[in-house]
Amino acid sequence: MKSLPQIEGALQAALATVNTGCPPGLTAALRHAVFPGGMRVRPRLCLAVAQACGGGDMRVAEGAAAAIELLHCGSLVHDDLPCFDNAAIRRGLPSVHQQFGEPLAVLAGDGLIVLAVETLVRAASHSPHLGQLVLLLTEAAGMPGGLIAGQAWESEPQVPLVAYQKAKTASLFTLATMSGALAADTPAEPWRLLGDRLGEAYQIADDLRDMAMTSEELGKPAGQDAALGRPSAAAQHGMVGAIDKVEGLVRGAIAAVPPCREPGLLKTLILAELSRLLPKELVLLAAA
Amino acid sequence: MKSLPQIEGALQAALATVNTGCPPGLTAALRHAVFPGGMRVRPRLCLAVAQACGGGDMRVAEGAAAAIELLHCGSLVHDDLPCFDNAAIRRGLPSVHQQFGEPLAVLAGDGLIVLAVETLVRAASHSPHLGQLVLLLTEAAGMPGGLIAGQAWESEPQVPLVAYQKAKTASLFTLATMSGALAADTPAEPWRLLGDRLGEAYQIADDLRDMAMTSEELGKPAGQDAALGRPSAAAQHGMVGAIDKVEGLVRGAIAAVPPCREPGLLKTLILAELSRLLPKELVLLAAA
Repeated sequence: MKSLPQIEGALQAALATVNTGCPPGLTAALRHAVFPGGMRVRPRLCLAVAQACGGGDMRVAEGAAAAIELLHCGSLVHDDLPCFDNAAIRRGLPSVHQQFGEPLAVLAGDGLIVLAVETLVRAASHSPHLGQLVLLLTEAAGMPGGLIAGQAWESEPQVPLVAYQKAKTASLFTLATMSGALAADTPAEPWRLLGDRLGEAYQIADDLRDMAMTSEELGKPAGQDAALGRPSAAAQHGMVGAIDKVEGLVRGAIAAVPPCREPGLLKTLILAELSRLLPKELVLLAAA
Repeated sequence: MKSLPQIEGALQAALATVNTGCPPGLTAALRHAVFPGGMRVRPRLCLAVAQACGGGDMRVAEGAAAAIELLHCGSLVHDDLPCFDNAAIRRGLPSVHQQFGEPLAVLAGDGLIVLAVETLVRAASHSPHLGQLVLLLTEAAGMPGGLIAGQAWESEPQVPLVAYQKAKTASLFTLATMSGALAADTPAEPWRLLGDRLGEAYQIADDLRDMAMTSEELGKPAGQDAALGRPSAAAQHGMVGAIDKVEGLVRGAIAAVPPCREPGLLKTLILAELSRLLPKELVLLAAA
């Protein structure tokens, strides 16, 4: 996990800009939402793609990676709110609204969207791709097919499963691969399919973990998909079918890596990711 | 009000990008948050400054103006939520959470932040000032001294009145004057003071209206500052003192208009704004 110190450093630098003069409760809520982090899988993917492409200024890629993680953390804060999942724990700690109250949780989620944009623009202000990088971010975050739209499908009477999961999960993976490439001065569009497939694999693996693991193992409430009547690929395909699907998607992702300077590095990382996504216990459990 | 059709057109164009493929409830909530609008005072100010400066591409100024209004509308949606003001009406209609439920209100507020950034970047993608324009927007929206930080002061036991009002209200006026200038290829910094003063005047006038007018006249719940224990300049200075202060700030704003191609136009607009901010009835009431 060579890229972790870079990512933590970029996130710390982003949060450091809000200390002085900011209401202390909001500062604390923002930090609680971002540190300690989860697997940082999206920013690691972004940096891995930038390294595999091998061009450009790595500071741009680091800014993009931090921005993606800030967006992700912000979306978790809002998803945990009482009007959505009403989740009291996240990453094994009290969720933001549980610790700081609902007003600061709403504002921390808002603030992380803004901080994501700011972090990206500061890092990429001299990049010829600045405009396109920001538009990739707003596409992945917003409407009609980004994170926010994905969450809004849960308020509809009929949920189109593919559009829902693509918007709610795959969008940030696609953002990670495409902005990693663009930060390395490589055209972004050929990197879309890789992000889509990894995002879909990740969503199904997450559904599987939600179904098969305990809240303690997950660090967040388990069994939420069933409890909240949310669409779940694991429920749709059954556990064995869903594990097959994840493995197929990961193979498809590896096949979708476009020609680049260091494809081997990236493919190794994707395979390592698979074993994190689907811990042995889960595979054994499904086979039992 | 020559600039209104331009502003409504730019807002309609921004919202048109979210129609296809977006969850219908979210699309409806976003439109409800933006149309019909209020006085559109911030985008009108932005366009007036751009016209007074007289250079650049007016499409950039229109994009900046629309972005400011989208941010403003988004902040109203979140401010009205049950965990903040719990306001059932806004602009004489049901507030977004009242009409569409809390989940879509949270998401519509989030979505309007993202749409504001997207609208600005699309309009300014070829501007040499793109990076600075987006950073002005994130400064006004975020931490430590923007809209979101301003709202977060309400969660603190001690509220510094000047920092609170500057963040919560003046920030978008300052954004309006500074991005109007920058869109017209004019350095932004000299336009900050004008925005600060107009923003402060507007905040006090708003406090006055909250204190003196009925909910029906306002199109939103009246007497909210007192009911929610919010800091109010009108309460602090008394009504006559507060009206004097608004008039002084507007004179100060006119004096702060930097040298530009058409200062007269801008000064006329500011004076016209004063009579909208402080309706005659309010001045008479205070004098009674």
